[in-house]
Amino acid sequence: GRLIPLGNILLIEDNGIHFMNFCSNCGSPVRHAIPDGDNRMRHICTSDDCGIVHYTNPNIVAGCLIEHGDRLLLCQRAIEPRYGLWTLPAGFLENGESVEEGAKRETREEAEADVDILGLYSMFSLTHINQVYMLFRARLREPVFRAGEESLDVRLFEESEIPWREIAFPVIHQTLRHYFEDRRQGAFRTHIGSVRAV
Amino acid sequence: GRLIPLGNILLIEDNGIHFMNFCSNCGSPVRHAIPDGDNRMRHICTSDDCGIVHYTNPNIVAGCLIEHGDRLLLCQRAIEPRYGLWTLPAGFLENGESVEEGAKRETREEAEADVDILGLYSMFSLTHINQVYMLFRARLREPVFRAGEESLDVRLFEESEIPWREIAFPVIHQTLRHYFEDRRQGAFRTHIGSVRAV
Repeated sequence: GRLIPLGNILLIEDNGIHFMNFCSNCGSPVRHAIPDGDNRMRHICTSDDCGIVHYTNPNIVAGCLIEHGDRLLLCQRAIEPRYGLWTLPAGFLENGESVEEGAKRETREEAEADVDILGLYSMFSLTHINQVYMLFRARLREPVFRAGEESLDVRLFEESEIPWREIAFPVIHQTLRHYFEDRRQGAFRTHIGSVRAV
Repeated sequence: GRLIPLGNILLIEDNGIHFMNFCSNCGSPVRHAIPDGDNRMRHICTSDDCGIVHYTNPNIVAGCLIEHGDRLLLCQRAIEPRYGLWTLPAGFLENGESVEEGAKRETREEAEADVDILGLYSMFSLTHINQVYMLFRARLREPVFRAGEESLDVRLFEESEIPWREIAFPVIHQTLRHYFEDRRQGAFRTHIGSVRAV
């Protein structure tokens, strides 16, 4: 599973909770304390020869809101969490890629679709799990898509067909609500803010 | 210094380069390989009892572009890298805070100023160092500011006074250029893209 830094613990999705106990550089135990010149608790290597401070920071989740005519593309999750529920193609940004590249890669992996990015649509902080969602409006290069390995199904939905009660995550639900509201008003803007735990 | 994940190494600002050698959960050595079901090299714990995959992902740098009348606020860096050069107040987003909260905190720390966020102005990926800059247009709540611990000086600059050749980072230089261009045209939009190494 993926490690999610959460305060002084590392929460591993689906696999439980592990602590940061050892220095990844030298293998010595770490202690939890505020370093000199800092104002937050960090994991600090206890070795005099190493002494590295191990920071943990929020992760970016990048994804796409894909328009095709008046329909939107949703993926049905084939993995936990939220197996069987519907979401936008999105996932953790990897080192070495831009946020836009990450959003397009996740779309290829989950929906086997190639898209062009139209613009940043929403940027929401999920402070309770240290994630920042960045979702882009995008369009299909060709009307071609199908379920990737992590999806059970991929479909285009008109607004009236959206399975509102089967959306996997609150941040996706909120982004979809903004999207249809903006579309009714005829203007898309970039939405920023926070989405709390449900 | 701060650990910057960079491929399979951890680059520590100002302090050199360290490798990820040990599992932070159990202290066993890690190996560098592609996990089952993945398509990228990761650090994997070699212990059968643990076996955690240690992911490293890009970090967010959050900051503010602060308008006061027709002037912009810049901070002169009192720390490496780029000691003595000018920048916008910005720094690494911390766990537990939203991107906007991080931008406001960095502004308090570096410029001792309280600001209101007006909107997201630029989102630039720096893929060579695995950072994503998110800079917000903001305004001073009170016309009060001064150099924080990490700044030598904090000043308001008119466009003609901007020390273009003494700007600390290319991403800041580019954001400032967009800002004054947008201001001439009378409309601010959200700029997204990538900034390469110089």
